[in-house]
Amino acid sequence: MTPQHVAIYGCGQLAQMTAKAGSALGLSFAFIAEPGEDFRCVEHLGEVVLLEPEMSAEALFEALHKPQVISVEKEMVDSQLLQDLAALTMVSPSSEAVFIAQNRIREKTFIREQGFETAQFEKIDTIEQLKALAQTAGLPLYVKAAEAGYDGYHQWRIKTDSDLEQPALLKAIESGVELIAEAHVDFIREVSIIAARSYDDSIVYYPVMENRHEGGVLLSTIAPAPELKESLQSDATAMMAKLLRAMDYVGVLTIECFETKDGLVVNELAPRVHNSGHWSIEGSQTSQFENHCRAIMGMPLGSTKVNGVCGMVNMLGKHGDRAEFAHENTFYHAYGKEERARRKLGHITLLSDELEVLQANVEKAINALYADVYEI
Amino acid sequence: MTPQHVAIYGCGQLAQMTAKAGSALGLSFAFIAEPGEDFRCVEHLGEVVLLEPEMSAEALFEALHKPQVISVEKEMVDSQLLQDLAALTMVSPSSEAVFIAQNRIREKTFIREQGFETAQFEKIDTIEQLKALAQTAGLPLYVKAAEAGYDGYHQWRIKTDSDLEQPALLKAIESGVELIAEAHVDFIREVSIIAARSYDDSIVYYPVMENRHEGGVLLSTIAPAPELKESLQSDATAMMAKLLRAMDYVGVLTIECFETKDGLVVNELAPRVHNSGHWSIEGSQTSQFENHCRAIMGMPLGSTKVNGVCGMVNMLGKHGDRAEFAHENTFYHAYGKEERARRKLGHITLLSDELEVLQANVEKAINALYADVYEI
Repeated sequence: MTPQHVAIYGCGQLAQMTAKAGSALGLSFAFIAEPGEDFRCVEHLGEVVLLEPEMSAEALFEALHKPQVISVEKEMVDSQLLQDLAALTMVSPSSEAVFIAQNRIREKTFIREQGFETAQFEKIDTIEQLKALAQTAGLPLYVKAAEAGYDGYHQWRIKTDSDLEQPALLKAIESGVELIAEAHVDFIREVSIIAARSYDDSIVYYPVMENRHEGGVLLSTIAPAPELKESLQSDATAMMAKLLRAMDYVGVLTIECFETKDGLVVNELAPRVHNSGHWSIEGSQTSQFENHCRAIMGMPLGSTKVNGVCGMVNMLGKHGDRAEFAHENTFYHAYGKEERARRKLGHITLLSDELEVLQANVEKAINALYADVYEI
Repeated sequence: MTPQHVAIYGCGQLAQMTAKAGSALGLSFAFIAEPGEDFRCVEHLGEVVLLEPEMSAEALFEALHKPQVISVEKEMVDSQLLQDLAALTMVSPSSEAVFIAQNRIREKTFIREQGFETAQFEKIDTIEQLKALAQTAGLPLYVKAAEAGYDGYHQWRIKTDSDLEQPALLKAIESGVELIAEAHVDFIREVSIIAARSYDDSIVYYPVMENRHEGGVLLSTIAPAPELKESLQSDATAMMAKLLRAMDYVGVLTIECFETKDGLVVNELAPRVHNSGHWSIEGSQTSQFENHCRAIMGMPLGSTKVNGVCGMVNMLGKHGDRAEFAHENTFYHAYGKEERARRKLGHITLLSDELEVLQANVEKAINALYADVYEI
């Protein structure tokens, strides 16, 4: 066996779960940490290399011990550095794919070019422009930094004209941050799609999942999405295949969508394994993490067969009592992080043969964790 | 969440896979290494404490950072030390259970006292005694060190009278090593049973597994055992329950048996997770490793439901090509060890809905790995 060495850009729980899956495959790992990044999640799983200011791709590649592949666990990475690394080793997914996904304007433009729906959107440079858009597109509008901000941070909801005067928003416009305004999408529910693609163009798809967010953060997922229409799954699969191929994408890609009465409207691309796919560790024959490793290492992909119905509830801000959440068909996952408000500390996977039982257990878990936090 | 800290006596792949399962549950680990023991398998998973000669239980407990529970990944441990540790913290399984399992004479005596079958056996102190037994019980006989030797090492097969003159055997008798002679059991196949028991006496059982050994080392497992009779499963389950309760055992216990035309004959007890249960990582809703962690931490046990038919093939002495063994329904596991003759380096799990397909794939994997080693 040739030892194979992988570097992951990022040090969070997604890198952790990927490295755990990959280590069983005989892979070794190194991780790239931004200055100040908390790398507790991965420090036992391989060497952590701190990204020094002005560090060259060559120096980084050496410090990582020359990985055969470099991958990412987040989209907010230095894509120029990633492109430079691609001259030295394989980068999967490619820096081009990450570059598209890390900017909401590029991302939505790309999705529309490929023939798929997104919310109506516009790049915002002045408050006047935003006010004009509010007139033509109507309210609510959502204003977001094009290149930062995820999980509800650095995002503004404009529900009334007075929301246009929010100091933080005005400050962001004045500071020249690249901003995008998106029109409201009248959706039935939020769903996501995860697939893995190999260098040889083989693709495996997980079923469309239903996601519930609270305050912009994923709270829970049910997979397959309840009452999933066959046409929605096939639309999702066809869209996924087209987007993967358009980017010559290798690895796991996630597409977050709105399900509307007219079908799927893409919200965003995540060029990586995704929180809404964590149930796949127990619920699918091959987890998203193992399939990501298999894909980027050029190994045959694993079956994504799902037994029964699966649920996932995030542990946000506090760990639940382990014993309370490790029932017969319930699996507790802690990432080894310290508690901090809203922080993703772990998740709970729930399995059942019956949707009603699963849904009740997901609600029970949410209640047990958050009865004092969310209105349920 | 109260952080919970576990120590495992032993540093091999069983400790590795247990710690991987436990870390997801939010547990932290430390490991006890014997002098000279290779601890590469676990060095990234927690602190390794080297057992110094004459180290007191108190000093060891401190060095391990006061674990709430201490468990074992092998039976050949210092059981007096384990008993001393039990005065300081929880030891699961108990030192008494490990003490029984680590000596073949005690073990078989215990099993017979509980009303179950073993091979006819006798403690051997002199060559005359062994020769007399050869006359009364007939050949072949198997002579083994009572307290060491597993996986085919330090074992002698007496097929003919001349085998009684083997120098290594005579030397062992002369040196006063405690020896056991066992009569031959006419078996149909070798099987094993794995279960986990909690402090509150709840028990979960994995299905009876069929095992194939080569040179005393496990080569492959199929679970559930093909053509498993209901009566054999219920006998196995009843025996497991009785033995677990007789020892007030907490954690995973494995019973290795011969299936004969008259039913089960116990070969040995392994007070730990077991090589024949590795398929449970992908093949069962809850793996043996997670259920061991759940049991020793007092958490509710997980479902042992099996989807389809599962196979496991050991990688002995050499790693196969990862890509060759990571097909759609095949999962490659490497433990991070260096190759050495006959050494357990990893395993391959195979899943299928159909027994015939699974059996063919298990044979294919064995062939690919060992066509040059075993006669197949």
